[in-house]
Amino acid sequence: MADDRFHVYDTTLRDGAQQEGLNLTVADKLTVARHLDGLGVGFIEGGWPGANPKDTEFFRRARTELDLKHAQLAAFGATRRAGVKAADDPLVAALRESGAPVVTLVAKSHDRHVELALRTTLTENLAMIRDTVSHLRAEGQRVFLDAEHFFDGYKSNPAYALEVIRTAAEAGADVIALCDTNGGMLPDELADVVLAAAGTQARLGIHCHDDTGCAVANTLAAVRAGVTHVQGCANGYGERSGNANLFTVVANLQLKRGFDLVPREALADMTRIAHAITEVTNVTPNSHQPYVGVSAFAHKAGLHASAIKVDPNLYQHIDPAEVGNDMRMLVSDMAGRASVELKGRELGYTLSPQDSRELVERVKDLESQGYTFEAADASFELLLRDTVGGDRRRHFSVESWRVIVERPAGGDVVSEATVKLHAKGERIVATGEGNGPVNALDKAVRQALERLYPELARLELTDFKVRILEGTHGTQAITRVLITSSDDTGEWSTVGVDENIIEASWQALEQAVTYGLLRAGHEGD
Amino acid sequence: MADDRFHVYDTTLRDGAQQEGLNLTVADKLTVARHLDGLGVGFIEGGWPGANPKDTEFFRRARTELDLKHAQLAAFGATRRAGVKAADDPLVAALRESGAPVVTLVAKSHDRHVELALRTTLTENLAMIRDTVSHLRAEGQRVFLDAEHFFDGYKSNPAYALEVIRTAAEAGADVIALCDTNGGMLPDELADVVLAAAGTQARLGIHCHDDTGCAVANTLAAVRAGVTHVQGCANGYGERSGNANLFTVVANLQLKRGFDLVPREALADMTRIAHAITEVTNVTPNSHQPYVGVSAFAHKAGLHASAIKVDPNLYQHIDPAEVGNDMRMLVSDMAGRASVELKGRELGYTLSPQDSRELVERVKDLESQGYTFEAADASFELLLRDTVGGDRRRHFSVESWRVIVERPAGGDVVSEATVKLHAKGERIVATGEGNGPVNALDKAVRQALERLYPELARLELTDFKVRILEGTHGTQAITRVLITSSDDTGEWSTVGVDENIIEASWQALEQAVTYGLLRAGHEGD
Repeated sequence: MADDRFHVYDTTLRDGAQQEGLNLTVADKLTVARHLDGLGVGFIEGGWPGANPKDTEFFRRARTELDLKHAQLAAFGATRRAGVKAADDPLVAALRESGAPVVTLVAKSHDRHVELALRTTLTENLAMIRDTVSHLRAEGQRVFLDAEHFFDGYKSNPAYALEVIRTAAEAGADVIALCDTNGGMLPDELADVVLAAAGTQARLGIHCHDDTGCAVANTLAAVRAGVTHVQGCANGYGERSGNANLFTVVANLQLKRGFDLVPREALADMTRIAHAITEVTNVTPNSHQPYVGVSAFAHKAGLHASAIKVDPNLYQHIDPAEVGNDMRMLVSDMAGRASVELKGRELGYTLSPQDSRELVERVKDLESQGYTFEAADASFELLLRDTVGGDRRRHFSVESWRVIVERPAGGDVVSEATVKLHAKGERIVATGEGNGPVNALDKAVRQALERLYPELARLELTDFKVRILEGTHGTQAITRVLITSSDDTGEWSTVGVDENIIEASWQALEQAVTYGLLRAGHEGD
Repeated sequence: MADDRFHVYDTTLRDGAQQEGLNLTVADKLTVARHLDGLGVGFIEGGWPGANPKDTEFFRRARTELDLKHAQLAAFGATRRAGVKAADDPLVAALRESGAPVVTLVAKSHDRHVELALRTTLTENLAMIRDTVSHLRAEGQRVFLDAEHFFDGYKSNPAYALEVIRTAAEAGADVIALCDTNGGMLPDELADVVLAAAGTQARLGIHCHDDTGCAVANTLAAVRAGVTHVQGCANGYGERSGNANLFTVVANLQLKRGFDLVPREALADMTRIAHAITEVTNVTPNSHQPYVGVSAFAHKAGLHASAIKVDPNLYQHIDPAEVGNDMRMLVSDMAGRASVELKGRELGYTLSPQDSRELVERVKDLESQGYTFEAADASFELLLRDTVGGDRRRHFSVESWRVIVERPAGGDVVSEATVKLHAKGERIVATGEGNGPVNALDKAVRQALERLYPELARLELTDFKVRILEGTHGTQAITRVLITSSDDTGEWSTVGVDENIIEASWQALEQAVTYGLLRAGHEGD
């Protein structure tokens, strides 16, 4: 469990999900939570149970499906409604019943918002805070409070804003997070307000948005002014210009301010985690993102190339390895012989220096075409076997394939695929029907091979992801397809890239089947 | 001409162009310079004449082709080489002959860089600075000095770093810009070093990179510490994580700090200028960019929609009109009636309470099936027209369509689509070939309709996004397709959802064409 003295509090699954175009399924949210836990954050805000059926389901499934090592889950929700008891408010009940060890209550701290948005009195708002915090505390949950619009509220009515903090703290809230909800603050004035709030003696946190391009700096300024709880989102996701980028905040505090926030080896995995999360959110990764972007340590060296070779630290603000990034990462996430050798060893292969050099070159070349091996372990292993063992062994070869998708007059859409393969000396023609072109291709391949390789019956396609890599020429863009497959004992992922989505899917499918047969003990011809 | 007391100095054309993937022709640079001048910046650094033939040509053409209203051009270059006279150095001559009224000389201020990269002595480096500044001043140019690696240099050898400033100022440099070349500084320590440098009495400037996510805040901290010259790049372009975003810096200083940097009406054109520059650079606009991004004032939270209607300023840190941007409401599963009504009003429709209730129900129902309207404004508008006006008017109806994707034996993949449509009383059968199934469908539809609707020739598919919504049944998952289309005057997005990716694409395509025809003034039958 993470140290309680300084909180790294992630709100990607709640506030980050407010980003335009970002829509996460419950399965996506569980996956992102696992990645965040791997980074070592202390708290993961999972959503608003009760207000949103998807979030209710997230907390229900989290109880059995999430096995967190560092983080604790927090359920987000509002204080009770005006004029009802906290115990009788169904939304408060949903927080109580979420099973989350922590509840983060959002409360108004701006007088005008109390009147306009809540449509109640300033006194009743304080009672709502007091009652809801006390009630949840009495029921055994830890309570944090998000003081919404705190900084604008402080400008409007400083005494009331401070009274909100005092009320929540006295009722038993452990942390009062000061929220720059509209994101308009600059670091110096923000720090002044945090110092004023510190006079309440409550434990304070900070929640910033990037509307002035200062979310990270505002967070650092608040830490300098005494807060011991920082909120933010993976990759800076969030509404409008986004929330404070939690990865940048953690790296700045840990590498430049001496804070000990996450395990050193987890920080060294931050770049991979940041990219793995973009695969789930399907948001194009920001290549310029500080610390973890693919361009973050990329140099158009030119003039200084020789000096960089002599002393790279003269040209880098940190050693990129500390965050799992690389100075030579221009084209490749795997670039560098060391990481390829490490990955090979992990898979049980010993690579000669010649092999690893060749493999690095092939990886770089393929990644520059749009392939990604970070999320396609099986494709990487097939490439590695190719490099070590000469030509890849094959269980089958493809003569041709064809897919027809049709919506006939007055009928439903049908998909049909035909493959012509050669395997174990036979030529096989088989056809499959499916509910989409890739499903039809998958069925046709099984139909063709299952008699020769009965193990294929156990192989299942469990996930299929599509990413358009160059979105500037419409449907002529390059398409990357990732397929995840499983059998009784595990799962593996493969990748295909082509301007044609069906060809890209076919590549990933062919590798998925090949790898499945290798797992089943068939070495191929 | 801009006021000389505080300099807004743009380096997009020089340092911004170091961004990976950014390549500007001379014509591009001239266009960007015109846009920057339209914004009212004081200085535009055009490049390094002499070191780069393209930049030499830029300055040559600028003399006759650029008619700047506010800005002055600055030529960037290095101090003379070690051991030669400034007057005899051909690179210094190129600066002199550039015709630029200002020369910005880059000089080493970090002792180790002098030794390692310049391979000369600390004393000779000072002489190089002194001679080059004096020479150019004597020849009639104004001189600024970029003190490269100043902050790291100050840490390494503070006395020498300060001596560089003094030497340049005494030789006649008007401004010494302190450069955080590696971008590793945080605002508080940066401000401390600026204060130390201010002791030299020289006029100081600041040049920041965003490697800690603090470039904007670092620039503001330096201004607070007394600098009167800020450097940055349009849209935050630049190497690695980019340079300080000049647009964010200017908006922060002018709207939140009371500086009078650019004309008020030019600031109100900033959003358009920012996007016009992305058209030239061909870099995808960052929708989350502070102030000018399309999402910068976009609100998703359904909860607050009713309060936003009453007083939008409670939810915005500035009036978006001040930077030429707009508040937008996103329709999402959090949406209530208030946000649907707001969105309707934004689109120019007045909804009856009955209409908005019905529309909210339809949106909720469709979103629960996987549709998303926040990123598909045109699909939302078509749905709204349906709801308000009864059945949607149609320009064409579909009898059937068929797509064939095939990799024949020994050949390349081919895609072919056939559509059978009815329009204006005719039955039309048309076939299109493409580099993928959706491209082929798009071509077939145009082929079918272009004779009846010649405006379709102007319609272009510019982006295509695919998202698999439930990744637990492999290729049987639900697929969501978003298509962005454009014509001469704007762009719009449409959405399709189906378990079959081709059917989902077809839905989005059909709506894209329908909406395009509505835009062209065809109301349909």
